Amino acid sequence: MNLLAKVDSFIATQGLLQPGQRLVAAVSGGADSLCLMDCLHRLGFRLVVASLDHQLRPESAEDCRFVQDVARAYTDEVVLGTADVRALADQGLSVEEAARRLRYRFLVRVAQDRDARTIATGHTADDQAETILMHLLRGAGLEGLRGMLPSTALSDWSDIGASKGLSLVRPLLEITREETRGHCAAIGLTPREDHTNQDRSLLRNRLRHDLLPTLESYNPQVRESLWRLGRLMAAQAEFVDQTVAAVWAEVVRSRGERAFGIDASALATQPEAIQRALARRAILLLRPGLRDLGWETTERIRAFVELPPQTRHLEVLGGLELFHLGPEVVMAERGGRLEFPEFPQLVSHAWQALTIPGEVALECGWRLTSGETPLGKRGGDPSSGDVPEREAILDADRLPGPLGVRGPRAGDRIRPLGMGGSAKVADMLINQHIPRPARPRWPVVVAGDEPVWVAGLRVSDAFRLTAQTSRGICLRLLPS
Amino acid sequence: MNLLAKVDSFIATQGLLQPGQRLVAAVSGGADSLCLMDCLHRLGFRLVVASLDHQLRPESAEDCRFVQDVARAYTDEVVLGTADVRALADQGLSVEEAARRLRYRFLVRVAQDRDARTIATGHTADDQAETILMHLLRGAGLEGLRGMLPSTALSDWSDIGASKGLSLVRPLLEITREETRGHCAAIGLTPREDHTNQDRSLLRNRLRHDLLPTLESYNPQVRESLWRLGRLMAAQAEFVDQTVAAVWAEVVRSRGERAFGIDASALATQPEAIQRALARRAILLLRPGLRDLGWETTERIRAFVELPPQTRHLEVLGGLELFHLGPEVVMAERGGRLEFPEFPQLVSHAWQALTIPGEVALECGWRLTSGETPLGKRGGDPSSGDVPEREAILDADRLPGPLGVRGPRAGDRIRPLGMGGSAKVADMLINQHIPRPARPRWPVVVAGDEPVWVAGLRVSDAFRLTAQTSRGICLRLLPS
Repeated sequence: MNLLAKVDSFIATQGLLQPGQRLVAAVSGGADSLCLMDCLHRLGFRLVVASLDHQLRPESAEDCRFVQDVARAYTDEVVLGTADVRALADQGLSVEEAARRLRYRFLVRVAQDRDARTIATGHTADDQAETILMHLLRGAGLEGLRGMLPSTALSDWSDIGASKGLSLVRPLLEITREETRGHCAAIGLTPREDHTNQDRSLLRNRLRHDLLPTLESYNPQVRESLWRLGRLMAAQAEFVDQTVAAVWAEVVRSRGERAFGIDASALATQPEAIQRALARRAILLLRPGLRDLGWETTERIRAFVELPPQTRHLEVLGGLELFHLGPEVVMAERGGRLEFPEFPQLVSHAWQALTIPGEVALECGWRLTSGETPLGKRGGDPSSGDVPEREAILDADRLPGPLGVRGPRAGDRIRPLGMGGSAKVADMLINQHIPRPARPRWPVVVAGDEPVWVAGLRVSDAFRLTAQTSRGICLRLLPS
Repeated sequence: MNLLAKVDSFIATQGLLQPGQRLVAAVSGGADSLCLMDCLHRLGFRLVVASLDHQLRPESAEDCRFVQDVARAYTDEVVLGTADVRALADQGLSVEEAARRLRYRFLVRVAQDRDARTIATGHTADDQAETILMHLLRGAGLEGLRGMLPSTALSDWSDIGASKGLSLVRPLLEITREETRGHCAAIGLTPREDHTNQDRSLLRNRLRHDLLPTLESYNPQVRESLWRLGRLMAAQAEFVDQTVAAVWAEVVRSRGERAFGIDASALATQPEAIQRALARRAILLLRPGLRDLGWETTERIRAFVELPPQTRHLEVLGGLELFHLGPEVVMAERGGRLEFPEFPQLVSHAWQALTIPGEVALECGWRLTSGETPLGKRGGDPSSGDVPEREAILDADRLPGPLGVRGPRAGDRIRPLGMGGSAKVADMLINQHIPRPARPRWPVVVAGDEPVWVAGLRVSDAFRLTAQTSRGICLRLLPS
């Protein structure tokens, strides 16, 4: 099969492009990108050719002009740009990383300006072998070891400002660099040589020019071995992703916009591979676009889940915390607001009035209501079970002030109905196993500033109905 | 944690040995195996020390005597052996492979003679990194890339004659070679140096002394990266194995002792990783103990399954074939006997008598019966549906000879009931989409040598009931 047919078949089987589609081709003037431009043109795609002068080499401006000259034969739409890579690198990035970021930002801008949804780059099978080898050396997981994908959603990369729906495709990913050179020669194009490709201070160049040839002395087919590893890992990643998508709902529930609750015992029954992938997925949902999420991170999460619930929290990544919450392990942004659909929770811990009759809306559809109640009902001994937990009956005449609802405060005490001494509200919440993050917004009904009902838990003995009571008030907690 | 505690914890978490268990320790006199012997002894295990003289080096007999001397401090049971590696290698194996085979055969024999169920070897974390790297270079799949397992059932290795229940454990698999040397020094033992470890003609030595140091110049932690790859692959392999065990029954059915039928469309809905693992499992069930089952093999199977059913068979491995069988792809030993529970199949294609009344037992619980039938029933036009397919009614008086059953023969022809001309029995089977391997044992009922019923398919018009019929015979096919 010749090169053009191989590229055509790869685009079709991978579903990279629609026939005749318009797209941005990233062209540097090297053999790979010239071959890309020529193939895409011959296969009937409409091109916007984009070339960025990274200003890292004296001849780079000339390379751009060369691209402009050559591209004229393929399209009217050629966009040249310049980037100040050194300036960005001076802010603490490596030159390679700064160049990568500026290059993709440029391509994204061109695509958005020109109303194209796809960007194509000339990454070859040799780039793929180098990428996989690089990930291998640094000990990457499935996602690294599978190498570059034929198609990537650019909005997943947080650092280049791509809008949703923009994708990056790599039509030459199964073509060798040697084949792209042959193609250029065959069509009479002389590629520009980027001399920084010889710079051994760059890891990728050392891999390309030194390490891969060394490995080939052990196995001349070592590139095939690396591609195979990539395919194996891609298949595993796909399989794991499918399984995780199905298992997710059983094991994980949302605890607000920036938090998940993970059922620790359900997680423990999952295979190690799925545990790791679930942890990874949770992190990426909270930190979309995070690149190079390390193996250590998911391992620390797996280890934490197995620790007893007494264990204090763990900082997974800067600002992202893990802590035990009853049978769950919660992953949440530090200081972020957790949702507890299973508990009554105030929207704010500040005081607000509770009129009679009246109602205060709580989180997740819960409500706290008040109303007069017929005097047939008497607050009795709670152990007799005649006071439902979600209901409190009070003597309106003896209340020391207007009713309100607020979160627990430091000095709050209450003498529970039918019990002897008074107790701290804070201790009550602890003794009732209310998780720490759910305590600050637990609704406490106060009369003036005196707690009369720790909602759903304890009602004050001081205001129970007596034979003298002329007006009874009923407070109720209604779940959503 | 010191070395002994690490080994103890590894043995416990991996469940390698029972406390105080008796086992065979393979000891060569090098640092790894001396360290193994010392640790196992200190941890309270009872040792049979086994040392094999491979006779590949002048000093090897002396190494054995050294082991004998040192081992005396640990156990009364020391078994020395000698092996003629060169003789086995002359039969076409590499010296390394011949040595491996003879070494394990020796260890297995010692274990069996001494009534031990476990053999321990001194493989270290460095051996593991080398093993993973070796598999990586040659492009192995999950099972290679995970490296050596902490525990292996030796009966899975077909070439060393291990009996069931014998296992190989590797207690030092997370200890570095450097640590074993340190341990020997600390206990005052000077290990024997095996000079063939310096022999660069052996791949493993080149990896150890040349390639790994080169890789360390790219990442000083490259061994950790390789171990991590191994752990990742082990977790993936475990996950895949669990899934395959569950999916197997849905997708695969037995077609006899040495054959499987794989539902091609059910297989196609499985993720690539599972397709590969199912193919692998089928092969290993037919060829237990096969080592180094290559990626290409499972890929060829996956490709074959997707081909249209017209495609001819594929030789998967020597003597192991794949062919389409209706909606299935069958994997079977060439010339092996397939089972077709869904069809009537003779036990043998040779002729056997069918008395009236009488019965012939077929495969998989099917039966073919004969008996007289009341004459009210008349064989009519089969298109009218009054002759059930699994039943044939014949005029006994006109039959040209005694009834029998046999497989189809080359010249067999029959004029089907209600049809004009005669047709070849062989063509009938093809036209009725009977798979080729099910045709030779398809039951054909003959009178003398004339086919009267192609069981379940066509009955001869020549012997249909007429007004003159005095005695009717009913033939029946009864499924299990």
